[in-house]
Amino acid sequence: MTTPDRPHLRVAMIGHAFMGAAHSHAWRTAPHFFDLPLRPDLAVLVGRDPARVAEAAGKLGWSATETDWRRVLGREDVDLVDVCTPGDTHAEIAIAALEAGKHVLCEKPLANSVAEAEAMAEAAARAARNGVRSMVGFTYRRVPAIALARQLVAAGRLGDIRHVRAQYLQDWIADPSAPMSWRLEKDKAGSGALGDIGAHVVDLTQHITGQRLTGVSALLETFVTERPLPAAAGSLSGVAGEGTGTVTVDDAALFLGRFDGGAVASFEATRFALGRKNAIRIEINGSRGSLAFDFEDMNVLHFFDGDDPDETAGFRRIVVTEPGHPYVGAWWPAGHGLGYEHGFTHQVVDLVTAIAKGEDPAPSFADGLQVQRVLDAVERSAADDSRWTPIEGDR
Amino acid sequence: MTTPDRPHLRVAMIGHAFMGAAHSHAWRTAPHFFDLPLRPDLAVLVGRDPARVAEAAGKLGWSATETDWRRVLGREDVDLVDVCTPGDTHAEIAIAALEAGKHVLCEKPLANSVAEAEAMAEAAARAARNGVRSMVGFTYRRVPAIALARQLVAAGRLGDIRHVRAQYLQDWIADPSAPMSWRLEKDKAGSGALGDIGAHVVDLTQHITGQRLTGVSALLETFVTERPLPAAAGSLSGVAGEGTGTVTVDDAALFLGRFDGGAVASFEATRFALGRKNAIRIEINGSRGSLAFDFEDMNVLHFFDGDDPDETAGFRRIVVTEPGHPYVGAWWPAGHGLGYEHGFTHQVVDLVTAIAKGEDPAPSFADGLQVQRVLDAVERSAADDSRWTPIEGDR
Amino acid sequence: MTTPDRPHLRVAMIGHAFMGAAHSHAWRTAPHFFDLPLRPDLAVLVGRDPARVAEAAGKLGWSATETDWRRVLGREDVDLVDVCTPGDTHAEIAIAALEAGKHVLCEKPLANSVAEAEAMAEAAARAARNGVRSMVGFTYRRVPAIALARQLVAAGRLGDIRHVRAQYLQDWIADPSAPMSWRLEKDKAGSGALGDIGAHVVDLTQHITGQRLTGVSALLETFVTERPLPAAAGSLSGVAGEGTGTVTVDDAALFLGRFDGGAVASFEATRFALGRKNAIRIEINGSRGSLAFDFEDMNVLHFFDGDDPDETAGFRRIVVTEPGHPYVGAWWPAGHGLGYEHGFTHQVVDLVTAIAKGEDPAPSFADGLQVQRVLDAVERSAADDSRWTPIEGDR
Amino acid sequence: MTTPDRPHLRVAMIGHAFMGAAHSHAWRTAPHFFDLPLRPDLAVLVGRDPARVAEAAGKLGWSATETDWRRVLGREDVDLVDVCTPGDTHAEIAIAALEAGKHVLCEKPLANSVAEAEAMAEAAARAARNGVRSMVGFTYRRVPAIALARQLVAAGRLGDIRHVRAQYLQDWIADPSAPMSWRLEKDKAGSGALGDIGAHVVDLTQHITGQRLTGVSALLETFVTERPLPAAAGSLSGVAGEGTGTVTVDDAALFLGRFDGGAVASFEATRFALGRKNAIRIEINGSRGSLAFDFEDMNVLHFFDGDDPDETAGFRRIVVTEPGHPYVGAWWPAGHGLGYEHGFTHQVVDLVTAIAKGEDPAPSFADGLQVQRVLDAVERSAADDSRWTPIEGDR
Repeated sequence: MTTPDRPHLRVAMIGHAFMGAAHSHAWRTAPHFFDLPLRPDLAVLVGRDPARVAEAAGKLGWSATETDWRRVLGREDVDLVDVCTPGDTHAEIAIAALEAGKHVLCEKPLANSVAEAEAMAEAAARAARNGVRSMVGFTYRRVPAIALARQLVAAGRLGDIRHVRAQYLQDWIADPSAPMSWRLEKDKAGSGALGDIGAHVVDLTQHITGQRLTGVSALLETFVTERPLPAAAGSLSGVAGEGTGTVTVDDAALFLGRFDGGAVASFEATRFALGRKNAIRIEINGSRGSLAFDFEDMNVLHFFDGDDPDETAGFRRIVVTEPGHPYVGAWWPAGHGLGYEHGFTHQVVDLVTAIAKGEDPAPSFADGLQVQRVLDAVERSAADDSRWTPIEGDR
Repeated sequence: MTTPDRPHLRVAMIGHAFMGAAHSHAWRTAPHFFDLPLRPDLAVLVGRDPARVAEAAGKLGWSATETDWRRVLGREDVDLVDVCTPGDTHAEIAIAALEAGKHVLCEKPLANSVAEAEAMAEAAARAARNGVRSMVGFTYRRVPAIALARQLVAAGRLGDIRHVRAQYLQDWIADPSAPMSWRLEKDKAGSGALGDIGAHVVDLTQHITGQRLTGVSALLETFVTERPLPAAAGSLSGVAGEGTGTVTVDDAALFLGRFDGGAVASFEATRFALGRKNAIRIEINGSRGSLAFDFEDMNVLHFFDGDDPDETAGFRRIVVTEPGHPYVGAWWPAGHGLGYEHGFTHQVVDLVTAIAKGEDPAPSFADGLQVQRVLDAVERSAADDSRWTPIEGDR
Repeated sequence: MTTPDRPHLRVAMIGHAFMGAAHSHAWRTAPHFFDLPLRPDLAVLVGRDPARVAEAAGKLGWSATETDWRRVLGREDVDLVDVCTPGDTHAEIAIAALEAGKHVLCEKPLANSVAEAEAMAEAAARAARNGVRSMVGFTYRRVPAIALARQLVAAGRLGDIRHVRAQYLQDWIADPSAPMSWRLEKDKAGSGALGDIGAHVVDLTQHITGQRLTGVSALLETFVTERPLPAAAGSLSGVAGEGTGTVTVDDAALFLGRFDGGAVASFEATRFALGRKNAIRIEINGSRGSLAFDFEDMNVLHFFDGDDPDETAGFRRIVVTEPGHPYVGAWWPAGHGLGYEHGFTHQVVDLVTAIAKGEDPAPSFADGLQVQRVLDAVERSAADDSRWTPIEGDR
Repeated sequence: MTTPDRPHLRVAMIGHAFMGAAHSHAWRTAPHFFDLPLRPDLAVLVGRDPARVAEAAGKLGWSATETDWRRVLGREDVDLVDVCTPGDTHAEIAIAALEAGKHVLCEKPLANSVAEAEAMAEAAARAARNGVRSMVGFTYRRVPAIALARQLVAAGRLGDIRHVRAQYLQDWIADPSAPMSWRLEKDKAGSGALGDIGAHVVDLTQHITGQRLTGVSALLETFVTERPLPAAAGSLSGVAGEGTGTVTVDDAALFLGRFDGGAVASFEATRFALGRKNAIRIEINGSRGSLAFDFEDMNVLHFFDGDDPDETAGFRRIVVTEPGHPYVGAWWPAGHGLGYEHGFTHQVVDLVTAIAKGEDPAPSFADGLQVQRVLDAVERSAADDSRWTPIEGDR
């Protein structure tokens, strides 16, 4: 029983697969480490199959269940809707929830198309005028090392940014016999590596630099186009069954870009980098300093301070576990690293705090829309001989 | 509401500082990721100060509080006592709890002296005959990379062990102006770096190798003997107040050793390794393979397979996040690393499972006693010109 | 006095700056570690300034000097011409030397334009019919870790290549006050980072994979367009003098590509990556294995063997100093690393061996031409909105 | 033909195995990169077997040969004797050479016993009064990263030294079937891993800290006592022949120590650390900063600056290839790493410079003697139950 005297924030979460487990842990855990102004209740879990959602609710710690997400919009005992479904459903659910006056946390990518994302951003803007908040779930922003990177850039420690290189490397379908998944179907996922993981590095590099991409030149590749159907449903791994399905998304996306502050950039997202499991690598070179990060060593940020004398200059391996580092003071003593799920907990902390303060949290749906526009430009460039394709601005 | 149909395991935890926070998180979290045979209740939190324990209970998620640990021993609604107090109280509490028929989880080091540890191990043995279980909290055994190391050695992948080198390096009192703490007082802590962190690497190396130390040659050092008193209580950090206190424990402990399987070993534990925050480093060389681990990169185990041809042999950087790795399948997809607190969650899993199965969990109080004997031999060797000092065996 | 009974190979070297020093060391050193079939004589050093070339000859170990490269072509006591001048002179010198019946070693990039490179490749082909050999100096091929990478790919250990990512990162002009150099003038250098260092990673990735790039999409950037003139001549560093000059080459080149075996690729070459000194980074992912290399740790190759079981798979840090590793047996025991200049020594070994055997050494001028065509396609793509630009094939 | 106007320094080298090759390279190479005040002549190579020494002279670049080292002492055309023989001959040769008025460079360890080393140090002191110089070949001091480490400590950047931990790990006889070598015979080698490689880390840590060990507690271990005789002579590797021989030296040496400035230390030297080829690892923690070095990444020094703010503090990976780094300016641009043999070249540079200036070079025979005393104390402690054993001081 934590902070019993705080107002409650009653949450309904839609979806209970990988992301649902991560979000549930965050809702459960945040109040035990951070002094939250509102106390989250894990009120309702929504899933289509009654038996499976009931089992998930028991496992994940939710008090009640629904099988139709529309029903939670009508419930007065729900303050916030947390959307953890595949991308093809984001727009419909999130817009309806906002219109029903519920705060919304929506997993990334915001939508499967720019048009959907625009509608969502417009709905979010309208809702915000009524005090209804929305946020898109680019959780990696809240990894302490990434948050520190943002602080260093914002403080001018890198000077003018000249180079951004970012890779998101996985290998979970490098084996051609890995079975189909909704993540490999364009109808459901919108795109492949591009939207699933490329979206993260687009958001992260824009967030850390405080700049936006202005254009891209791209290529997409699908290495394996036919895969066995899965023996049973499962989003990330699974056992092959009978028959095959067609992969309709990219296995890999590569693109060059330019940022509005003058930097040039190189991006790569792939599920075929054998031996790399979840390697989010970001390196930024400025006129005064440089940064490097790899999620395979997530508690570390490498920082080169160009102001150091040549003889003692070198990339500093900062173990981002000091009390003064972002989010870290709430956890353990220095040197006791955090894990993947802590980013979700920090997301809850920032979202709840913004709601309580009556402020718009970041990243907003407008931020999610802008990432969507980058993804769209990547697809259009790739379809047009890699020709340089400007990112559409806000209208 | 998780696994509602399982029998409950009602826990009382004594102490609510750093270790209490870690244990609480583990008790709360384990049932949401693992299919536990018993459902832990965070029933009672014990602390001496009524206001502080109440606040802690709210923060950490405990249902009730007590201010005298003896009272929980008489409560029928408590099944297990979790001892998170300084070492000088372990023996009294743990023995009383066992005699009251409560299972006991006791933080490490088991006790502040061999005599106390012997009494505890005897009490544990007696209790076990009545189905009452006990475990000492060497949690680092449950870091997946460490558990994998144990598996590799047990499978013979290292052959005969020839070298063990282990260091536990911190720097939290490297600054002479860092204030006093109970951890710097021999009366409360038993010893300094030796028992606090050296105990971990003694346990880990014995656990991984499946062997025991047979003797040591040691030296101890206290670099800073007078420190400011703290402005307020706090175990690991704090602000200096007025006056000074005397450090009565070692700042650093170094010792050589021999294992019963023929390996030679080098150990070091220090709180003065500037720049090293929680660097638990273990390297083991065998006739067939080698291992290296550093907690600063806790999701990685380095393994050299001597069976590989020379031309393609090299230490393999195993990212220990595959579904087949110990404990990992319950968490996230490959590449999504775990953090410090997961070891505590795994400890709860193993403890609860053992209790449900009616088995004795490991590490036992006898294991804790054996570590205590190593620490004792280190102190005696250091006091006797570093002379070789055998580890006393079981009587 | 080495291998006195071997026929001599009398070398004339043109140019004596950075590359001249590296080549001289190689000519001097190779016969002392390798059993060469011909004994190199450092016969003639050519430089325009009589005093400076005499001083350089003394320092670098050359027996005689000339101030006009044309004169060495007429000397019967010269067997091989080693061209270490800026790129704008390569074609004229190399073609004339080949026509004079001298073997030629020519520094990279082969030329400053495709047309020049074509003429050179044609001259080389004509000369080869008369037993006159030629080689272009992509020395990094002969770093043992790179040579091992090639062996692993050739042996099928990577399977089908899917991803190539290559970066050559330097920072020697990241400071806008660094002075002008011939390397920043298009007339002399042909291009900037693209030809100077990008050429290396184009050659290396094609060499390691045994495949060729078929097309690119590119962007070029010049961050600093006006720089102080140098106080004195110097190619790589220097002190600023009065006045400024205009940088007419790229500071950074980024491009995407496709290889003829189906891989997609990302390339980057820059002199503005603050903190990176000579970071040649190559990572290759195949269906069966992956490789990673960074010249900042040049004696190491990282190899992921996809055939390893998941639980013990990981990038192997191969210290490429075993007797069975390429070139290494001639040097020191295992673990005693080599340096930058060893690649040049290995180049001499391979060149001299090919000449003695009457074989054409690699990389040939045709290989150099093909790299030139890639560089040319990069420039054309960058000038045409990054549009996809095929690499012209051989005619 | 280098620096023709400089006086010559005519060198006779005794021994032409591994060390002879390294020394020869250094004598040949130093004048081409450094502006030496004297020009070394590779005048005479000495070896017992006429055919083998003639072949070696040809390979290594020596002008003449002798088969009896005594003969070079009588030659007027020899200025310096370079002793590259096994340790049992050092004392006799070096003392005789010094008495004959020849400068002496002697490989390490200086001798096989303290008594021999004392006689050598006395001979060196007598000779120095006549302007005859001597040096012991602890070449690793001249690895640039090590030299930088010394500079940082000398400049006070580490403050008071509290911890030294040093390991020299090899694995060349980890396989029990590796054959015998003179390095495994006490009569020839004096000791095993202790003197061969342990001597290096004793010297290096004393050199870097500017302090001396005052006492040790030690253990020695021989894992494999019988080995096959080699099929043919060879010092470091070889093929097994018929029969076996007895290993009479230590395979591994471990010891704890104290430095005269208050630091505690841990040392380990072994030839059984499977997977470690030549891992010289040194880590030093002070009150103001820390250093870490590993010869497996020899161009890098890790430096933690305790003066950095906590939020941006971290071990700096200094790539020790900047023009301002020790010895580096004579070689290549930044980022172009050096190799193992460069330390020998730097040794020649410092030795030749000291001779020309009429100064005593370092490390002196007295320094070598002091290391010998440490080794002796290690052996005595190991033979006496690891009891604390003071290092004898100078008499």
